[in-house]
Amino acid sequence: MNPSGNYLLGLDLGGTRLKALALTPEGSEIARDTAPTQGDDWQDQVRRCVAGLIARQGPPLAIGVAAPGLAAADERSIAFMPGRLTGLEGLDWTKFVESPTPVPVINDAHAALLGEVWLGAAQGMRDVVMLTLGTGVGGAILSAGRLLTGHIGRAGHLGHLTVNANGPPDIANTPGSLEDAVGNHSLGARSHGSHTSTAALVADVLRGDAAATVVWNRSIRDLASGIVSLINILDPETILLGGGIAEAGDALFVPLAAELDHLEWRPGGHQVRLIHARLGDWAGAHGAAARALETHLTQS
Amino acid sequence: MNPSGNYLLGLDLGGTRLKALALTPEGSEIARDTAPTQGDDWQDQVRRCVAGLIARQGPPLAIGVAAPGLAAADERSIAFMPGRLTGLEGLDWTKFVESPTPVPVINDAHAALLGEVWLGAAQGMRDVVMLTLGTGVGGAILSAGRLLTGHIGRAGHLGHLTVNANGPPDIANTPGSLEDAVGNHSLGARSHGSHTSTAALVADVLRGDAAATVVWNRSIRDLASGIVSLINILDPETILLGGGIAEAGDALFVPLAAELDHLEWRPGGHQVRLIHARLGDWAGAHGAAARALETHLTQS
Repeated sequence: MNPSGNYLLGLDLGGTRLKALALTPEGSEIARDTAPTQGDDWQDQVRRCVAGLIARQGPPLAIGVAAPGLAAADERSIAFMPGRLTGLEGLDWTKFVESPTPVPVINDAHAALLGEVWLGAAQGMRDVVMLTLGTGVGGAILSAGRLLTGHIGRAGHLGHLTVNANGPPDIANTPGSLEDAVGNHSLGARSHGSHTSTAALVADVLRGDAAATVVWNRSIRDLASGIVSLINILDPETILLGGGIAEAGDALFVPLAAELDHLEWRPGGHQVRLIHARLGDWAGAHGAAARALETHLTQS
Repeated sequence: MNPSGNYLLGLDLGGTRLKALALTPEGSEIARDTAPTQGDDWQDQVRRCVAGLIARQGPPLAIGVAAPGLAAADERSIAFMPGRLTGLEGLDWTKFVESPTPVPVINDAHAALLGEVWLGAAQGMRDVVMLTLGTGVGGAILSAGRLLTGHIGRAGHLGHLTVNANGPPDIANTPGSLEDAVGNHSLGARSHGSHTSTAALVADVLRGDAAATVVWNRSIRDLASGIVSLINILDPETILLGGGIAEAGDALFVPLAAELDHLEWRPGGHQVRLIHARLGDWAGAHGAAARALETHLTQS
């Protein structure tokens, strides 16, 4: 129980579940909860979860939301998110959670980066590119301390970067994209059906399986090409890798660093740091809380 | 003669010549001059040119400098520029031109974009990616109205973006780069020796030459892949094309737009504008003056 209500509530809406996190303004965890979001009643589930937390903790200082899709420029809603979570597009979260103060709504990959910068592996950094390597490849960009959102909220869709211009189009029409070269969704095709899980592929690589090693090394080479492109475009101090594939740890980071030794432009010997994200699945909820705090401080 | 000295002096230092431009704070041209910079005495040439302008126009309100290489974070010098213009690295331009007020020094491609945003084809825009297509491929990024410079001043090196990960490394180690796919420097190799000038190649394309058309279309396809990557990473409202190759006009813009119709991700039908830069060779001098004005206004 926190009767003063002096806490931040970060909500991360996913296609499977909502993650709700109550943090002090200093970032210490007070409570967390989850709710299922796969059914048509996802809005009821979210409302009930939020109401339950508020009943237990008192009213929060500020609420922030992370969700898939493109956030509106005014950060009051998700403006574009076809196909899943029906009703999310255009939903005004300030009204939806009946907040007396504005509830910022940001893209979930953007939120994950803000979480890592506030409380995770990129604390205090100002120029960071985050890549989330999972089923697909997502990302976000911090430049001079500011999250890049772009003209329609699309900035940071780093999976939809061409690495092989003659390759087939991906889900966003991008030819030979980083997402198709690295994401778990394409592993079946890339391995000619031998693997469908990157974790199993990596296990076989570590056992010395030659065929698995070819598939893995090719994806690492393409990832390295994408990373040096991002370095030359954005000039971050750090590349932050998150998502399930980054859990491979040394099996990913060691050969990737070796590729970067060949491919990275290092003016005057300057080398970009390559590090592993730290907050895992809860990075987005942390980032939603971070944005809530930022909005609160700006407006008060 | 402008006895009040109420003008901006923009200097654009190139490997062949200095371009010096005197503009009113509203952007009207008062005077321009050039000086050769290919000799070891380039610093004397620059000093003499600047002194001559000041003798004729009176002392300027503010001076700004555009130059090749990576600008220092404090914008007082170029921090990294190996090989050419000996003595440029670390040169403090505020002292060098004996200015009573700080002289901002920025990268020349960054300056060209600021020039186009102030007085050229991108006036008033806030999210712009500029690509300069010439001997090599350069660029610059404006996001939410701010020039992206990055951690060591490298942001915007858009030529060093991979479009074919299995291609050979370019001058910055980037495999299969946009610069090598499009820049005039590689045309001899790309055309198997039939052409060394993109202008001549385009003339042959317009005459219906089949071999020239294959080379040209391949470079346009790779350029389109690079552009959709940049759209998905940065989400600009406009892609601005400058440099000698963009002078091809419709021969470039029409087939490029047709490729983008296939490759561009257009959420909710939103399409990024593709336009031709307007200030040509003098964009950098305009941008240096723009940065001088900005610095002056911030500090006064």
